[in-house]
Amino acid sequence: MQFSQEDFEKAKDQLKLLKEDPGNEVKLNLYALFKQATEGPCNTTKPGMLDFVNKAKWDAWKSLGNLSQDGARQKYIELVSSLVSAESSKVKETPLGSKSVYETLEVTAKDNITQIMLNRPKVKNAINVKMYNEIMEALEEAAKDNSVVVVLTGNGDYYCSGNDLNNFANVSPTAVQEGAEKGAVLLKDFVNHFIDFPKPLIAVVNGPAVGIAVTILGLFDIVYASDRATFHTPFSNLGQTPEGCSSYTFPKIMGVSKATEMLLFNKKLTAAEACAQGLVTNVFPDNTFQKEVWARLKTYANLPRNSLAISKQLIRSMEKEKLHEVNAQECERLKERWQSDECMNAVINFFQRSKL
Amino acid sequence: MQFSQEDFEKAKDQLKLLKEDPGNEVKLNLYALFKQATEGPCNTTKPGMLDFVNKAKWDAWKSLGNLSQDGARQKYIELVSSLVSAESSKVKETPLGSKSVYETLEVTAKDNITQIMLNRPKVKNAINVKMYNEIMEALEEAAKDNSVVVVLTGNGDYYCSGNDLNNFANVSPTAVQEGAEKGAVLLKDFVNHFIDFPKPLIAVVNGPAVGIAVTILGLFDIVYASDRATFHTPFSNLGQTPEGCSSYTFPKIMGVSKATEMLLFNKKLTAAEACAQGLVTNVFPDNTFQKEVWARLKTYANLPRNSLAISKQLIRSMEKEKLHEVNAQECERLKERWQSDECMNAVINFFQRSKL
Amino acid sequence: MQFSQEDFEKAKDQLKLLKEDPGNEVKLNLYALFKQATEGPCNTTKPGMLDFVNKAKWDAWKSLGNLSQDGARQKYIELVSSLVSAESSKVKETPLGSKSVYETLEVTAKDNITQIMLNRPKVKNAINVKMYNEIMEALEEAAKDNSVVVVLTGNGDYYCSGNDLNNFANVSPTAVQEGAEKGAVLLKDFVNHFIDFPKPLIAVVNGPAVGIAVTILGLFDIVYASDRATFHTPFSNLGQTPEGCSSYTFPKIMGVSKATEMLLFNKKLTAAEACAQGLVTNVFPDNTFQKEVWARLKTYANLPRNSLAISKQLIRSMEKEKLHEVNAQECERLKERWQSDECMNAVINFFQRSKL
Repeated sequence: MQFSQEDFEKAKDQLKLLKEDPGNEVKLNLYALFKQATEGPCNTTKPGMLDFVNKAKWDAWKSLGNLSQDGARQKYIELVSSLVSAESSKVKETPLGSKSVYETLEVTAKDNITQIMLNRPKVKNAINVKMYNEIMEALEEAAKDNSVVVVLTGNGDYYCSGNDLNNFANVSPTAVQEGAEKGAVLLKDFVNHFIDFPKPLIAVVNGPAVGIAVTILGLFDIVYASDRATFHTPFSNLGQTPEGCSSYTFPKIMGVSKATEMLLFNKKLTAAEACAQGLVTNVFPDNTFQKEVWARLKTYANLPRNSLAISKQLIRSMEKEKLHEVNAQECERLKERWQSDECMNAVINFFQRSKL
Repeated sequence: MQFSQEDFEKAKDQLKLLKEDPGNEVKLNLYALFKQATEGPCNTTKPGMLDFVNKAKWDAWKSLGNLSQDGARQKYIELVSSLVSAESSKVKETPLGSKSVYETLEVTAKDNITQIMLNRPKVKNAINVKMYNEIMEALEEAAKDNSVVVVLTGNGDYYCSGNDLNNFANVSPTAVQEGAEKGAVLLKDFVNHFIDFPKPLIAVVNGPAVGIAVTILGLFDIVYASDRATFHTPFSNLGQTPEGCSSYTFPKIMGVSKATEMLLFNKKLTAAEACAQGLVTNVFPDNTFQKEVWARLKTYANLPRNSLAISKQLIRSMEKEKLHEVNAQECERLKERWQSDECMNAVINFFQRSKL
Repeated sequence: MQFSQEDFEKAKDQLKLLKEDPGNEVKLNLYALFKQATEGPCNTTKPGMLDFVNKAKWDAWKSLGNLSQDGARQKYIELVSSLVSAESSKVKETPLGSKSVYETLEVTAKDNITQIMLNRPKVKNAINVKMYNEIMEALEEAAKDNSVVVVLTGNGDYYCSGNDLNNFANVSPTAVQEGAEKGAVLLKDFVNHFIDFPKPLIAVVNGPAVGIAVTILGLFDIVYASDRATFHTPFSNLGQTPEGCSSYTFPKIMGVSKATEMLLFNKKLTAAEACAQGLVTNVFPDNTFQKEVWARLKTYANLPRNSLAISKQLIRSMEKEKLHEVNAQECERLKERWQSDECMNAVINFFQRSKL
């Protein structure tokens, strides 16, 4: 098969449209074929040892030896064509912006960022069983798509009001044990998805956060908060115990004595307090929150993808085993708690109060 | 044995005097027996699935089937009677407010809080051998009593001036090795009591704290300090090394570089500094210190007992083994230090200075 | 061999010139021999049990029994002589102030402090291969010399601009794999020298710090910074990943979410920010920086040597194994990164920009 000069020009143009960097080896090869096609065999003097870039290019050109200009042109066209078709087939696998449709979430993808937005604003984004499952599914998709960073945020005034207590109300009294066992399995699986998430995971905390929405922040890589956000974990009020690995991550982040005030004694932190104690990376005024945060996120999403993912994994790898152990223990304790009188009384009181 | 209507009324009144919640199962049973006794078999329509509370009550009543009103009354009276006698026998085991009498401590119990007060104000609550042993005994008692949280504080101007150096002076020069060995055993046992303490342990730091009184704060769950308090660990001045697990807890709480300034280079922290670095949970002005702290403590002591204890244990369980290992290593190093020239010179200098 | 009264007087004078404390046992022996030589056998009453110091002296004197005054004088002279010659031979082994001569460092020793100064001010103290090796050599020497604390600082305006990127430029394109492997071995060895350093190690950060000069600060015991200093780790910009154990020490010091902003997303910290987050112990105004820091260092260097070294080792011993594991993993990841297109592109871009 023969290629015309026109095909060669077209290949040059197609090359400029590639979205992904094809890598150094390929680029050197393209350079060499182009030179060979337009100027013939390498005829310049070898660059000095320290002239790294030009020496690499020279080596590549030289390596083509006496390949004819026509032959080089043909190989150039074929190489560009293979790059173009590889990219277009890849794009088809994970089309930008057309994520699965969820009932409780809105998931969008743009500028190398996948955003998972909790979307039950009428109940302050409380997490029901459906939402637990959909968040896990969305994290699995985001782990595989071509995003560089992944964002979790809430729709409306709240970031997330935590576990939907109707999850308890729907358990019939004669099936408390079964309900507790199922709940513990679901919770453990949910938290594991955050422990194992392979890319930088960023929380954009647009408003108040409660319960498990707070505890899992210790498993995020960056937490940006509006100054309207608050952080509240009223577990003991409900006869419960901490989850989301917070019994390990919170003492590590802020020391045991500050973590205990939150996790045992229900202290609600302002955004500024949460930042001073290291749970939140940075706080922004609410009226410029989205603008300032997204300016940063776009910069982050342009950084080398593998470098970021591997850096995150390095930071987490040393404690991943421990986090899984902590998660299992916390869920085991909660399974017992959910069957305890302390917890049942507290939940009953909650519903009785909320009926007034 | 037959019961009169009068017995039934008396049982109703006794029930109101119970101090401890008998638990949901018992309460549902009491409800059902009372309904059966006064209205006969269950004759109302079944509540809806989501009406959790009423459905539980209905189920309990329904489960009594055709039990006679007399039979229900009898069972009700017997059940109340068993609850009353169980509680009164329990109260006898751990009478509120009548703790063991100690020589160096004052221990009181009130409002679900056991308070252990160091009571050698004339020597700034320095810990002599007697006090080491009494603190251990008091912790063992508090672990078993019916308190929800346990408080350690100091009588007088000082919280605690640390190890009483007369513990060294009483060692004869020919028995230095024996003294060091005994000291290390005592210290290890003492610190283990804090590592293993099963309930929330709260330090109410009313004034300056020195040495081991500072280092063991890393093993407390909450540390509230007056703004008069200071935190000083002058170990190297005395040729000694850190204890109380501080070589592990302090770097974890404040980072190695701040911990080193305290533990190696004798930096004395103000209460505000200790709070900024996470060693102290909160600082209060001295003139409102007791009032503000006890208001919080009373709230805490009304939270569900098991939820708090289990939450604390979750937080500590992951590192308990490590803490015991650290404690053993620290005591081993101190045993060597106490026999070293560096340490002996420093202690001799201390006594010579204090004689001037 | 006989000794004159003159020899005895001379011994008394020589004793005063000893620089190191000979230890309690020797001092008591000297005391006893002196008393025996000048007053004869012990003839005073035994001091009370609690009079620790005098009782120890009395015991020592008494133990000489009926040794003649001449014999005591002779033993005294011999003992002093042995102390003097032991000290002078020791001084010869590690002469103060006359360290090995280095090409990239200036190493000095004074007042129990060894200072290692990075000395390539024209390239902002960038670390080339020569400097990596010399720092390791200087640390090995400092570990063995008689210094109590060891200081690392920079000559000129910069503390250290990190890894000299010319280390990459000198790798020929055909030897990238070999270069990456050698680099990883060098880096691992370098970081291990900090992990294992046995004495208090203090960074005096006189100006901006970049890359590995920042990450290894997590392995120092104290970090004092001028308010001119900044802390920057732009790894992902260069397609690289964190080293110096920072993937472990930074999250431990400041929490994951603040560490990630530095290590993944290139946030440059001011000295005040680095201090608030625990990476820096204390910040000083630049115009009084050297004066204030050295006043502290001199105080530190007068503290008991063994007490300090053992305290440091206690703090580090619990995590030494983990640090070695982290270091190995980080170097393994970097070896892969250095061979990646992401990294090569970034380095090529760096040199192309810097040629403009």
